[in-house]
Amino acid sequence: MPDVTVTRRLMFNAAHRVHNPALSDEENTRLFGKCNNPNWHGHNYTLDVSVRGAIDPRTGYVVDLGALKQLVEERVVNEIDHRNFNLDVRFMQGVIPTSENIIVAIWRELEPAIRPGRLARLVLWETPNNYVEYAGE
Amino acid sequence: MPDVTVTRRLMFNAAHRVHNPALSDEENTRLFGKCNNPNWHGHNYTLDVSVRGAIDPRTGYVVDLGALKQLVEERVVNEIDHRNFNLDVRFMQGVIPTSENIIVAIWRELEPAIRPGRLARLVLWETPNNYVEYAGE
Amino acid sequence: MPDVTVTRRLMFNAAHRVHNPALSDEENTRLFGKCNNPNWHGHNYTLDVSVRGAIDPRTGYVVDLGALKQLVEERVVNEIDHRNFNLDVRFMQGVIPTSENIIVAIWRELEPAIRPGRLARLVLWETPNNYVEYAGE
Amino acid sequence: MPDVTVTRRLMFNAAHRVHNPALSDEENTRLFGKCNNPNWHGHNYTLDVSVRGAIDPRTGYVVDLGALKQLVEERVVNEIDHRNFNLDVRFMQGVIPTSENIIVAIWRELEPAIRPGRLARLVLWETPNNYVEYAGE
Amino acid sequence: MPDVTVTRRLMFNAAHRVHNPALSDEENTRLFGKCNNPNWHGHNYTLDVSVRGAIDPRTGYVVDLGALKQLVEERVVNEIDHRNFNLDVRFMQGVIPTSENIIVAIWRELEPAIRPGRLARLVLWETPNNYVEYAGE
Amino acid sequence: MPDVTVTRRLMFNAAHRVHNPALSDEENTRLFGKCNNPNWHGHNYTLDVSVRGAIDPRTGYVVDLGALKQLVEERVVNEIDHRNFNLDVRFMQGVIPTSENIIVAIWRELEPAIRPGRLARLVLWETPNNYVEYAGE
Repeated sequence: MPDVTVTRRLMFNAAHRVHNPALSDEENTRLFGKCNNPNWHGHNYTLDVSVRGAIDPRTGYVVDLGALKQLVEERVVNEIDHRNFNLDVRFMQGVIPTSENIIVAIWRELEPAIRPGRLARLVLWETPNNYVEYAGE
Repeated sequence: MPDVTVTRRLMFNAAHRVHNPALSDEENTRLFGKCNNPNWHGHNYTLDVSVRGAIDPRTGYVVDLGALKQLVEERVVNEIDHRNFNLDVRFMQGVIPTSENIIVAIWRELEPAIRPGRLARLVLWETPNNYVEYAGE
Repeated sequence: MPDVTVTRRLMFNAAHRVHNPALSDEENTRLFGKCNNPNWHGHNYTLDVSVRGAIDPRTGYVVDLGALKQLVEERVVNEIDHRNFNLDVRFMQGVIPTSENIIVAIWRELEPAIRPGRLARLVLWETPNNYVEYAGE
Repeated sequence: MPDVTVTRRLMFNAAHRVHNPALSDEENTRLFGKCNNPNWHGHNYTLDVSVRGAIDPRTGYVVDLGALKQLVEERVVNEIDHRNFNLDVRFMQGVIPTSENIIVAIWRELEPAIRPGRLARLVLWETPNNYVEYAGE
Repeated sequence: MPDVTVTRRLMFNAAHRVHNPALSDEENTRLFGKCNNPNWHGHNYTLDVSVRGAIDPRTGYVVDLGALKQLVEERVVNEIDHRNFNLDVRFMQGVIPTSENIIVAIWRELEPAIRPGRLARLVLWETPNNYVEYAGE
Repeated sequence: MPDVTVTRRLMFNAAHRVHNPALSDEENTRLFGKCNNPNWHGHNYTLDVSVRGAIDPRTGYVVDLGALKQLVEERVVNEIDHRNFNLDVRFMQGVIPTSENIIVAIWRELEPAIRPGRLARLVLWETPNNYVEYAGE
């Protein structure tokens, strides 16, 4: 059977502050500018979860997108939607909540749970003008 | 000369908490749900500023959109971008930072300064699935 | 208090056939072309529901968008999502399921139930290139 | 019958130079900046043509959108698509090709030809961040 | 010459029912939920056809996008636009019309006919929240 | 550290004429149709610049997107925004300004200057319906 990649898009919004607590306030301001605002700011994030695998001839699906959506909501979206990445999110403890670190953390939450198929790619939009992607490498 | 409405779209992002300090925590939770998270959440907001007026035959413009953009940035966007609506914004003091209250406050900041033409409409998108509009009435 | 218009966007998809059973097959083909295909076709529809009213000073809301979403889902979206407008939808019986007739029927389902505020406008996108709007007039 | 507004979106692209030949080069540069580049620049324009009228009970349509598209292509899009607004377009002669002047000129080309229904509104996007609208007033 | 990938986006809409005739009605309902509605539902599909190859120095093109569009319309879009995937489409006979099976069938229709260049990737959006991609592997 | 790809989207608009001066006018018309209009036409281009690299543990960034934006503006956007690709752009001299040739030229301007990380992919949208991508191969 052919290998197809299927993607489910989900949205959430959250607050964060780009801040490295090991550095001085001056250094944080110099490195992160307005993204370092101590009173936080936030975004509407868009997350594309892509699963690759063979088409199941019984269903015509690589993976049931309803089940995939439920899995991503339970493992990831419910933990971060309307939350603060620096203060509220278990799987972001100890890392600076940039999009790069967020997407790697989401990968680690999701990758072991994806089946059938395998997690092939995550794309995370922070604003309409920037996004990150990660393929587990 | 015909009356045309011209619109400039701007974007910003901010944190907020939908919270009425005059109510109990229980009542706030009941009314606002996850939008009441004490650690904040945030959005990428999109703001459409519409100015209506006659076309100036010398320029072909109702208003110079570069000048309009600069005005909106100085009066509004620089005050709220990468900020916290509850804590950081002078013109939001004393009101709950819902989209409804934000758009009325932005109107009051902008309306007296718009010329030529007159401020005809504001539209504020909070997420890709909800927006508010206000025409000063 | 100022009057603000708030909008909630919802999506659904459905099948339909643009067909007038009072006319001959030839006339239906002439009038409706490929939209008259007897085996149906379908769309991802986008519906913008706009409610206008005063801002409630206790909540900062014109209307709770969560409650509005639930109302529109119960009265409209659950009746039409993944359905056939010609065969499955109670409130479309006896009319040709064009976007014009759909939006008027949705208005009649929603308008009496909207409160606080009043239903101010519906916009229904049938494709990314065409939409209809209705304000109850 | 209810009055509904139906909209057809069309796209075209064109070159232009924002320039007033009655003014000096210095004044043109001061007024129009980089939009005054003598070697032109261009845009992908998006045009929304809205027609309002009663629903025809025989068809369920206010207007046949296929016929409306054909009319707008013949009268407007074929004249301006892949053209230069300053040099190539009959109905733009003698005016500065700003979005404001373009939309009024398109209105004058289309308004007398629209039937059934009446031309209710034009919206013209010049970039994803600015647009103009005109209702014939 | 460098190898560049060029993509043409096309849209169509169609009805379908996700149904495996080899299974019982109960099993179909359990597997496919509302997507199994016997009266069909439908979508506006978006198809991105990507061709990769060297740039022809005489034209600056990898492939003439007008010719590519015409080819995809003749071989694919005209067969499925405003049609029913289960009933009307020759190249979908005997498979469940999920996005996964549709994209593989479209690949088989297009791949032998693409030249110059080679078909590099297809992306098919079924809704704004889910899409599939296939690269012939 | 994981390898993540980060992307910054930028926009510009420009005029061009698809024309090969080594060919006759008849041949140019036959090959390029309305894109060969001697009075030019233009587009709003969207450029996605993707940089891949390890996450810097001190910042959480692969690359500072503000610095990346500034670099792309200085090296590319300021050279082409509101310009004519055939007449005004140093790095397009001697090539036909198709999207394929534009993206390869932009790659050559940017690739040596990207650090930290490496330029991984460029995507250039010419219209909402066609785009090219290049990965330096």
